[in-house]
Amino acid sequence: MEKYFYPESTVVVGVSESEDNLGQDIISNLVNFGYSGKIYAVGPKGGSIMGHKIYTSVLDVPAAADLAVILTPARFIPEIMTQCGKKGIKHAVIESAGFREMGKEGYRVEKDLLAASKRFGIRFIGPNCVGLINTLNGLYVPFIELPSEFKKGNVSVMSQSGGIGLSLAERLNNPGLGLSKFVSMGNKLNMDEADILAYLIKDPHTAVIYCYLEDFKRGRDFADIALRSSKPIILHKSNTNPLSHTIARSHTAALAVDDKIVDVVCTHAGVVRVQSIEEAIFAIKGISMPLLYGKNLAILSRSGGHSVVAADMCATYGFNLPQLHPGILEEAKSHFRAGVINIGNPLDLGDIFDLHIYSQIAEKILQQHDIHGIVYIHVSQMVIENEDSIQLMKKLTELSLKYDKPIAIVAEVPLSFQQMLMEKITHSFFMDPVEAFRALALQYRYASFRQKKSHTVKEVAFPLQDNAKIWIEEIQQKGRQPLLHEALDLLDRLGIPTATWRMVTSFSEARKAANEMGYPVVIKAVAPSLLHKSDQGGIAINVRNSESLEKQWEEIHSRFKDIIGIVLQKMIFASREIIVGAKRDPSFGPVVLVGMGGIMVEVMQDVSMRLAPVSEDEANEMIDQLQGAKVLGPFRGMKAADRRAAVQCLVEVSHLMHHIPEIQEIDVNPLILSDDGNDGMALDAQIICSNVTSQ
Amino acid sequence: MEKYFYPESTVVVGVSESEDNLGQDIISNLVNFGYSGKIYAVGPKGGSIMGHKIYTSVLDVPAAADLAVILTPARFIPEIMTQCGKKGIKHAVIESAGFREMGKEGYRVEKDLLAASKRFGIRFIGPNCVGLINTLNGLYVPFIELPSEFKKGNVSVMSQSGGIGLSLAERLNNPGLGLSKFVSMGNKLNMDEADILAYLIKDPHTAVIYCYLEDFKRGRDFADIALRSSKPIILHKSNTNPLSHTIARSHTAALAVDDKIVDVVCTHAGVVRVQSIEEAIFAIKGISMPLLYGKNLAILSRSGGHSVVAADMCATYGFNLPQLHPGILEEAKSHFRAGVINIGNPLDLGDIFDLHIYSQIAEKILQQHDIHGIVYIHVSQMVIENEDSIQLMKKLTELSLKYDKPIAIVAEVPLSFQQMLMEKITHSFFMDPVEAFRALALQYRYASFRQKKSHTVKEVAFPLQDNAKIWIEEIQQKGRQPLLHEALDLLDRLGIPTATWRMVTSFSEARKAANEMGYPVVIKAVAPSLLHKSDQGGIAINVRNSESLEKQWEEIHSRFKDIIGIVLQKMIFASREIIVGAKRDPSFGPVVLVGMGGIMVEVMQDVSMRLAPVSEDEANEMIDQLQGAKVLGPFRGMKAADRRAAVQCLVEVSHLMHHIPEIQEIDVNPLILSDDGNDGMALDAQIICSNVTSQ
Repeated sequence: MEKYFYPESTVVVGVSESEDNLGQDIISNLVNFGYSGKIYAVGPKGGSIMGHKIYTSVLDVPAAADLAVILTPARFIPEIMTQCGKKGIKHAVIESAGFREMGKEGYRVEKDLLAASKRFGIRFIGPNCVGLINTLNGLYVPFIELPSEFKKGNVSVMSQSGGIGLSLAERLNNPGLGLSKFVSMGNKLNMDEADILAYLIKDPHTAVIYCYLEDFKRGRDFADIALRSSKPIILHKSNTNPLSHTIARSHTAALAVDDKIVDVVCTHAGVVRVQSIEEAIFAIKGISMPLLYGKNLAILSRSGGHSVVAADMCATYGFNLPQLHPGILEEAKSHFRAGVINIGNPLDLGDIFDLHIYSQIAEKILQQHDIHGIVYIHVSQMVIENEDSIQLMKKLTELSLKYDKPIAIVAEVPLSFQQMLMEKITHSFFMDPVEAFRALALQYRYASFRQKKSHTVKEVAFPLQDNAKIWIEEIQQKGRQPLLHEALDLLDRLGIPTATWRMVTSFSEARKAANEMGYPVVIKAVAPSLLHKSDQGGIAINVRNSESLEKQWEEIHSRFKDIIGIVLQKMIFASREIIVGAKRDPSFGPVVLVGMGGIMVEVMQDVSMRLAPVSEDEANEMIDQLQGAKVLGPFRGMKAADRRAAVQCLVEVSHLMHHIPEIQEIDVNPLILSDDGNDGMALDAQIICSNVTSQ
Repeated sequence: MEKYFYPESTVVVGVSESEDNLGQDIISNLVNFGYSGKIYAVGPKGGSIMGHKIYTSVLDVPAAADLAVILTPARFIPEIMTQCGKKGIKHAVIESAGFREMGKEGYRVEKDLLAASKRFGIRFIGPNCVGLINTLNGLYVPFIELPSEFKKGNVSVMSQSGGIGLSLAERLNNPGLGLSKFVSMGNKLNMDEADILAYLIKDPHTAVIYCYLEDFKRGRDFADIALRSSKPIILHKSNTNPLSHTIARSHTAALAVDDKIVDVVCTHAGVVRVQSIEEAIFAIKGISMPLLYGKNLAILSRSGGHSVVAADMCATYGFNLPQLHPGILEEAKSHFRAGVINIGNPLDLGDIFDLHIYSQIAEKILQQHDIHGIVYIHVSQMVIENEDSIQLMKKLTELSLKYDKPIAIVAEVPLSFQQMLMEKITHSFFMDPVEAFRALALQYRYASFRQKKSHTVKEVAFPLQDNAKIWIEEIQQKGRQPLLHEALDLLDRLGIPTATWRMVTSFSEARKAANEMGYPVVIKAVAPSLLHKSDQGGIAINVRNSESLEKQWEEIHSRFKDIIGIVLQKMIFASREIIVGAKRDPSFGPVVLVGMGGIMVEVMQDVSMRLAPVSEDEANEMIDQLQGAKVLGPFRGMKAADRRAAVQCLVEVSHLMHHIPEIQEIDVNPLILSDDGNDGMALDAQIICSNVTSQ
């Protein structure tokens, strides 16, 4: 991708002398912001622009350019790409709209474009985008005449929307921030989010990556690349609900994905997800500070009220406020003027008027082992303090770097002084305590991910793979979806505990099985028409004796014409149950989930998800993250539930999904947990496969 | 309170010529900001300041002032108040700290201060505050030398913290905002939040009230005054959790209150609660626009990406995006230049370059009956558009007022243009779409409250009051907390359905009662030692026959030495249960709550609360607001639960709490709901009264 950002020559296609021509803006941006490579303009009417001749065809350009930037009506683009190909141009940015997002005609043009690109091996960004920027060499190719250069820095922006990307870039024009590279990805017809991320994580001039997406083209690849990144990635994924799906589709032809899976991917790959540009800036500011390797903060403020509010926010964002060492408190107190303020954490410095003492106290606090960071709320109304305030803020930033702990500085100061700070301070600070806490909370999420030991993509052993392969082959031979007994059979083959069960096809077999198991029993009809769980009529529970069994047998047989047998199970009474499930996402591949059984999952949608496969540790983590996890501990006089079966089921199901691509969905519901020393077990399961008819 | 804000003369006590004297700042603020009343300075060392003589005692001041502002060490204040009293001064602001919040010695001084205030009938604000401001007449008495006047406007600030109040006031220095009156309340030893609110809701120069509190001194009075207010009140209540309790106590001697009740009060009184200064500003901006009388928005933007993000936010904040009339869409399309954008709601105007057309389209949208407001995201990078952009923003504000529907304008523009807008625009706008949606969501909360028909404090009829009074007298005569049978008896007296029950004191009585009711039955020991629910050993359920009854009878009697009888109930099987409870909050009086029974309340803390008394409608609303309310509708093949008993119980319990102040707590748990056409019923209850020993 080097050629995209460091081209020695750039040809801009779609330029004319006409006043409202947008191609002109591309030329003027390149000229104004000091692009040092060669610039060639192309447009059918010829002429010249800013001293550059406008060639009437790409073929007429005197040399093969490294990069073509194309902004013409969509219908001409396949031909222009062909000309680029003939000319030996291998990299293009197509800014024009009017493709897939505009319907049928757009699809046709798109097909021709792809054919031309393939024929000549041209890779391209877009279409339907505002192009690229590299602040390091003045490569500015957006078709919008920008008022000024962006501030240089080490944040790179990759955005599916040009508007969002430019808004974010604009906000990097702030102390401590700045833009490195910018890519507007548009429809991602050729170069997609995975390609660009792969480049940016290696780019030496990029330290932080902001990524705005409306959909994923290669979700799993993106996740895998992100997982390998040593740089923080901030993901702003929109198009999360029905209200935005239509507009996203018409905007960048984006399709909706299950938004919960996006969260799962972020957890998996250590990506910090944000919901707005504003929050992205908080995250970038947060991550630009030394990382928080723990949740213990100290709050320093000159205002008691701000200290109270900040302490509340600590609780809201999950931070702690440990006691400060008595020596620190005594030192603070020794500088108090009126002695009318109590001391603690938060530490109210309102009684100390000499700002130099503030940094001395802050340094002592940074030395305290169990404090991981500081929030300092600077409240000042007095103009005469401005110079000292600036010195204090600089000193605090030095200390933060020296001790490798973040100090989030909040400037609660008059507007005029804020503006002065914007000019004089070269590191990030915050205008409101909420912003500081949000920034710290976001960076803590990243820091905790970094602290975990291993993030390499693991090759996962699945010793029972052969059992699963045999099973899926049998199902495929049958040419229909697996039925209940087949689903339970697969669980058995994977070593997942199931309640004792027997598939029976005659009443005498049923009676024999029930006698062997002991009453009461449960019977479940096995019939292709019963594949959808909502049909409830196929089950009889708590069958207590053989008369009752016979009655139920007959009733069930009369109800389902396609019945092929009955699964008979020992009736199990259990107080706690969970569900385990898995599905295959078109963009991200297999995902596994666990939920509290019964009402908790139905009403509260209390589930926890991960990309498959998962380890035992991850399975335990998933269960801990359920809102209702408390129910599984000692509860209402019951002992803690035995989780072994749940963990085992999660791990095995996740491996199964990873290794057997024909399985689309698995639903183990319920899986009961015991609290009497016995193992838990699955009572019911449904599996949906691909490439078989679903009746 | 008029004298506080419009004093014709003000005496400042605690002034000296010494360089670090804070009293000087009060004088200079008054002089600099044009206070037109007489200013008298008082300080023991005499001298003069800014041309004003410093009198050595209040008694020496040549005339009785309307207002005394006192900033001396705390220990001198009782004497100064005495001097004020002798001089005929009736209003004081005590800015000094060093009272209750500093411990024992502070308490003593406080007692003397109160005595002096009472003796002379002096009302005072503070102590431990930064004083008052009235921007209309230049009355600025904070002891901080302010760099400039605050921008005049119609927002009044009442704040328990001076620092928070001043930060908020500073942020009113923004387009469309401005400060009217400012009160720092400090320890609220005399004038409290209810006094000041009562004044501000009547003040003709106040349109919006911002109130920062760390505790409530007269919570219920505050709620009642707020309920009568025709002006929006924005409450920023901090000190909400253990991390902030200590600092709040040392800051303004604030005590913690149950934070959930604060939310309840806000719902009750139509107060908009915010969690930060930032959010308060969003609320004020939101409320300054015409109110949203519905949840349907239109989004206009020049950027597709911003439209997608805004549509997501609509969903996040609970707004809808109805279809725009085809005529509007066609009109928009007729102005498109390249025709490469689809149309809908959000409406992407990126293809229209003439900004005049934007306001035409906006006007048509405002005329659409089912659109209640607009969010317009202005994206502009081009300097040549600045003037047109300003005109457009002004025009949109005019239209908003003309059609009485809000248009929230978001300026996604370069920093330099933002600064220009801050100078040239005189109404509120937003710097980020999130801010606009938060502002609209906050104002919608207020608008919906205003739309409800009646908010007068209703005198509530409670025909069964006499039954309740007889009951409480009986309990008080017994001199102990009511036992189970007495609690059930009260429910019966109030007409709340209970499961058939009988208090029995001999086994023969028990057997007779069980035979009459029919087995199975439940027996519950009645013993003073069982008043705490956690003791589980006093109950036997599902007792199926008289042998079993006898066995359980004996077991229970052997277990509880102080047993005085047994409550025998018919065993009831039910699938859905709730709990109803009530308690008396020291600051807000009686509060009633409902929660889903069983695991939902235990694990999810799924409860809904209101100030008592409540009407049937409110009771139904409370139930609807439970997260698990879905369970009460048609669910898992069951019909919708019959709510009558639940509603009746909530209403009667709330009336009981309102009329019988001796009852401190009521807990009806469980109350089962039926789905078979029968009424629900309470199975168990516990009541705690005041003025009786609790064993």
